[in-house]
Amino acid sequence: MTPIVSVFAASPDRGRGLARDMAVRWALAEVGQGHELRPLWFADLKTPEHKARQPFGQIPTYETDGLTLFESGAIVLHIAETHGLLPADPAARARAIAWMFAAVSSIEPVIVEREVAVLLEGDKPWTRERLPMLEARLRQRLDDLAAWLEGRDWLEGDFSAGDIMMVCVLRRPAAALLMGDYPALAAYVARAEVRPAFQTAFAEQKARSDAAHG
Amino acid sequence: MTPIVSVFAASPDRGRGLARDMAVRWALAEVGQGHELRPLWFADLKTPEHKARQPFGQIPTYETDGLTLFESGAIVLHIAETHGLLPADPAARARAIAWMFAAVSSIEPVIVEREVAVLLEGDKPWTRERLPMLEARLRQRLDDLAAWLEGRDWLEGDFSAGDIMMVCVLRRPAAALLMGDYPALAAYVARAEVRPAFQTAFAEQKARSDAAHG
Repeated sequence: MTPIVSVFAASPDRGRGLARDMAVRWALAEVGQGHELRPLWFADLKTPEHKARQPFGQIPTYETDGLTLFESGAIVLHIAETHGLLPADPAARARAIAWMFAAVSSIEPVIVEREVAVLLEGDKPWTRERLPMLEARLRQRLDDLAAWLEGRDWLEGDFSAGDIMMVCVLRRPAAALLMGDYPALAAYVARAEVRPAFQTAFAEQKARSDAAHG
Repeated sequence: MTPIVSVFAASPDRGRGLARDMAVRWALAEVGQGHELRPLWFADLKTPEHKARQPFGQIPTYETDGLTLFESGAIVLHIAETHGLLPADPAARARAIAWMFAAVSSIEPVIVEREVAVLLEGDKPWTRERLPMLEARLRQRLDDLAAWLEGRDWLEGDFSAGDIMMVCVLRRPAAALLMGDYPALAAYVARAEVRPAFQTAFAEQKARSDAAHG
C-alpha cells in the first residue's frame, strides 16, 4: 500500500515547513517513495481514533502495510532503514542514528523551551528576564554543534537521515534567529535546503497550507 | 573488545540511578554483556578528547570495536539491535523504536523543563508561579501515557528497549513526584525495577557512587 502520513489540515506555521511532518515528507522525497496524506484538524487530534494512532494526540503518523508508526524520528528511521537512507557500514549507520537522537533529544528541547517561553508565557512579566538565560542554554548547544560541523558538509560522512532530523530542528524559529552568529550552521542548513527532495517536500506542504489558509 | 561506557566519576544524583548511563548499564545487563567504565569528572567532560567522543560534552558514551557512540537512546538501540532486545517482527520492532523516541522526545523534555526550573531558577521570584504551569504540561503527557499503559504490562507486547528508555525517564524526580496520581505508571515502573537486570545495573552504579562520595 501507499503509506499514509497524517498532517495538519491547516498547519499553524502557514507553510514554512516547521511542522513535524516536514522531516517525514523530506525523507520520503529523498528515497522517491510516494505517499498519501490524512489531513487532521486540531479537534481530530484528541479523538480516541487518532490517539490509537498517536498516543499523545500529535502529528505526524505513518501507516503502511500492517504498521502504524508515530514520532517523526522513528518514522524517518523506519523510512531510512527500508529505503537506504542510512550508511551500509554498521558503525557509520549507528553514528547516523546517534545524530537523529541528538537532534530530538539534545538540540530540540532547548529550542522548544525558548519558543514556548514566548508562545505560552510571552505575556508574563518574567519572560523578558528569562529570555537571555534560555538563549544562553541554546547557544551552548549550537556552539558545540557548530564546532562539530566545522569543515564537514554533513554530520557524518554522506548525507543521511541524521541530517534530515538535525536540519529540521535547526530550521525552527528560535534557532533560525541565531544563525547569523553561526555561519557553519547556516551553511549546513542552506546545503540541505537546496536538495531537490527538500524542495519537493517543502513545496508540497506549502501548497497545502496556502490552499487551507486561502 | 569489551565495551567501554563513560560515566560520571561521582554522579550528582548520588547513586539513585538517574544519570543517563543508567539506561545503557541496564540494557547491557539485560543482554548479559559485560563492560568497562571510563569514569569522568566534570572537568573531563569539556576537554577536546571527550568532545571527540561526545560533541556536547556529556555522558554516556559507548566504545566498542571501531565504533564510538553517544546519546543514550542511540546506544541502547545499538545494544538492542546487536543482542536481541527488540522484537524480531519488523512492525513490532519499529513500534518499540517509536517508544524510544517518544521517551526522549515527547516525555523527557517536559520533565527536564520542570526540573531545570527548580535547579537553575529556584531562586527566582517567578519560579513559584511557573511551577503549576510546568506541572500541567507534564501531566498532559503522563495522562496520555497512563491511558496507553492501562491494561498493558509493557509499552508494546513484551519488554523491550522502549521500556528501558521510558522507565528511565519516568524515574526522574519531576515525574517520580507525581507517580502517586498515576497508579498505572507507578506499577509499570515497579515492574521494571524488579527485573534482575535493572537491579544489577542499579547496584553497580550505586556502589560506584557510594565509593566516590564516601
